[in-house]
Amino acid sequence: MESIKVGLLGLGVVGGGTWKVLARNAGEISRRAGRSIEITRVAVRDLAKARAMLGSAVDVGTDPFAVVRDPSIDIVVELIGGDTLARDLVLEAIAQGKHVVTANKALLAKHGTEIFAAASAKGVMVAFEAAVAGGIPIIKAMREGLTANRIEWVAGIINGTTNFILSEMRSRGLPFATVLAEAQKLGYAEADPTFDIEGVDAAHKLTLLASLAFGIPVQFDKAHIEGISQLASEDIKLAERLGYRIKLLGITKRRSNGIELRVHPALVPSSSLLANVEGAMNAVLVRGDAVGQTLYYGKGAGEEPTASAVVADIVDVTRLHTADPEHRVPHLAFQPDAMADTPILSIEDVVTAYYLRMTVADQPGVLADIARVLADAGISIGSMIQQPSDADGSADLIFLTHQALERNINTAIARIESLQFVRSSVTRLRVESLS
Amino acid sequence: MESIKVGLLGLGVVGGGTWKVLARNAGEISRRAGRSIEITRVAVRDLAKARAMLGSAVDVGTDPFAVVRDPSIDIVVELIGGDTLARDLVLEAIAQGKHVVTANKALLAKHGTEIFAAASAKGVMVAFEAAVAGGIPIIKAMREGLTANRIEWVAGIINGTTNFILSEMRSRGLPFATVLAEAQKLGYAEADPTFDIEGVDAAHKLTLLASLAFGIPVQFDKAHIEGISQLASEDIKLAERLGYRIKLLGITKRRSNGIELRVHPALVPSSSLLANVEGAMNAVLVRGDAVGQTLYYGKGAGEEPTASAVVADIVDVTRLHTADPEHRVPHLAFQPDAMADTPILSIEDVVTAYYLRMTVADQPGVLADIARVLADAGISIGSMIQQPSDADGSADLIFLTHQALERNINTAIARIESLQFVRSSVTRLRVESLS
Repeated sequence: MESIKVGLLGLGVVGGGTWKVLARNAGEISRRAGRSIEITRVAVRDLAKARAMLGSAVDVGTDPFAVVRDPSIDIVVELIGGDTLARDLVLEAIAQGKHVVTANKALLAKHGTEIFAAASAKGVMVAFEAAVAGGIPIIKAMREGLTANRIEWVAGIINGTTNFILSEMRSRGLPFATVLAEAQKLGYAEADPTFDIEGVDAAHKLTLLASLAFGIPVQFDKAHIEGISQLASEDIKLAERLGYRIKLLGITKRRSNGIELRVHPALVPSSSLLANVEGAMNAVLVRGDAVGQTLYYGKGAGEEPTASAVVADIVDVTRLHTADPEHRVPHLAFQPDAMADTPILSIEDVVTAYYLRMTVADQPGVLADIARVLADAGISIGSMIQQPSDADGSADLIFLTHQALERNINTAIARIESLQFVRSSVTRLRVESLS
Repeated sequence: MESIKVGLLGLGVVGGGTWKVLARNAGEISRRAGRSIEITRVAVRDLAKARAMLGSAVDVGTDPFAVVRDPSIDIVVELIGGDTLARDLVLEAIAQGKHVVTANKALLAKHGTEIFAAASAKGVMVAFEAAVAGGIPIIKAMREGLTANRIEWVAGIINGTTNFILSEMRSRGLPFATVLAEAQKLGYAEADPTFDIEGVDAAHKLTLLASLAFGIPVQFDKAHIEGISQLASEDIKLAERLGYRIKLLGITKRRSNGIELRVHPALVPSSSLLANVEGAMNAVLVRGDAVGQTLYYGKGAGEEPTASAVVADIVDVTRLHTADPEHRVPHLAFQPDAMADTPILSIEDVVTAYYLRMTVADQPGVLADIARVLADAGISIGSMIQQPSDADGSADLIFLTHQALERNINTAIARIESLQFVRSSVTRLRVESLS
């Protein structure tokens, strides 16, 4: 069979990795795919660097639209990132009747609905395994492996930078800023780390996972997002004392009145597998009604792990590129005409357990008053720690609550903060039992 | 589109689960598959029980060949187990041009080569996700998700019964026989537990994983198999002191001179995710050259987890049942004409690290002599414990070696056992660093 011709947009970390993996494992890959896969044309910004890597057999230029419009190209692989030029290129590739493989979570989280609709209308595939959790085949697992299940929830460590920072903060007892500076030096964090540390990258990925889980359109703008930059080492230590570790989780959950879609630091039981996912590793825990919990773990970023997912998509597309669209798996796991309009819940409508920490005057009646406020808001307490505070004549109180509605927690926090003997704002973290 | 007609052979635990999941999640599944899937005909032994479960809409009989030969059936789901009648039925279904879904690891580990060849010749699919690790989509991950990789090794906890027994032995300090009896009472172990506890079931599954990883024919007869029935609680405790837990692992590894294919108890580092897979859960760790390590975790058995995999296969087959065979993923991940004839290594040619325990006379020179025997066989020692033995005037020595050839270890053990001051046979366990 003739080889499949791939046009590559971008030759950065992932683009370079894709080139290397396809070259090194060409034999292994064609033994599986039944035909060879060739990158025949590449668009880059730096021609000299590209020619040094690619040699003379590949057509290298600076105009990505020339690649997208090249009639000899079967599959366009978009690895330039961003959501403006990338959007134009992907839509143009689709208009040209080409299949697309992309690692671009920001693009799909924001413009997925438009892009998938265009692809369906044109009868082409847009594959995006590399957009979530790098080399872990989580998209495939959710789209195909768990297809028998009504998915109940997904909870994932889907940002390696923040997991690296949290792992170091815990194991070495260091504050956020120190570890972030180290992570930047080691290349685990960008010079401008905002996207990672504020949870935006994780929310892009979670948005896609939620669509795959529940058959809802991608709705990044409805996600609730909190990062880890405000997290105190003290809370990491206290969590550990209580039998928990703090992870930045992306959580999406089906509830009777809608879908939770939220990224934030959360306490998870120390003995759980998710708590033991350390360093820059990623893991996604999925609960289906038939299968129960399954977990998928691996490297969520990096040159070759991400390329592993890009190339897997290229092989999948290669297999089905001349097949009837009905033979293909729908982009978001569910048929386009069978998507649901289940609403995304506001964060105030989320139900989970909470960790509350506050500094109070060390005097009689304080605990009774706070416990009363919680009880009045319908919140019951699972466990509690009281310890001397750094401030004179003060004590720190830490509560773990049972499941409660976030709106009620917020009401209770406002009341607690208005009490005269409460000397700090209330630190509030969510607790996920993952059961 | 017309619904897909499924004929079900067997309505035991997995068959019943398949019926329930397909019925309960019919809406969710057809939203994904784009058409509905109906079990229209079932063959069972107990008609009355089947009719009570299935109602009157399904044609129930006792002759499985009648189902297999029914022209209205698109997919035959074989869930009767065993490898004689099941083999005849699967081959007849293929001869009738029907696709097959099966959970039967014994059948495929022994007769896979014949069955897959027949299916390829006839242009039908034989899907077997449920044959390995229950509801975990590990077959799909290896056949498709990791297709860019040269797989280096696979190490899996792929038998829930033995993992449950080992977890209980460790956490409660009980001997094998006591825990086995409990497991039988709880339904985690069969009345005749031989297949599970002697590693045969794990070896069936490992044989399939090895084929998927390396593109070699299924060769169950070449697998090295040791179970856990001889494992002493004492070794579990000593392993823990040394920073390890003992798990029954299926390991297959690519080496320069062939492929390792072995099932046996092994020490794994206590901090590794595999060590923390407890109870009846399964997990498979796969190392690919591009992606690094990825891990897949979930329930490896049970009614609905296994049904989850069966139904996922039915949906996959439904999508591709009228597609050209070239559009389909090859049965064993590699194209039938691209399989390798890499030899399976004998256990003596395996290279790994070892745990050695022996009782010796507590007298000067003993340690020096044993260390000399090990050194002479080219085996270097990583760590060592000496402790008083239960027997008077004796000591127990426990060594952890660095990587060594098993043949050399066997030579050294024979020499050690021939030393006059050695009062026991040498207990030998393998140690897997999983790196």
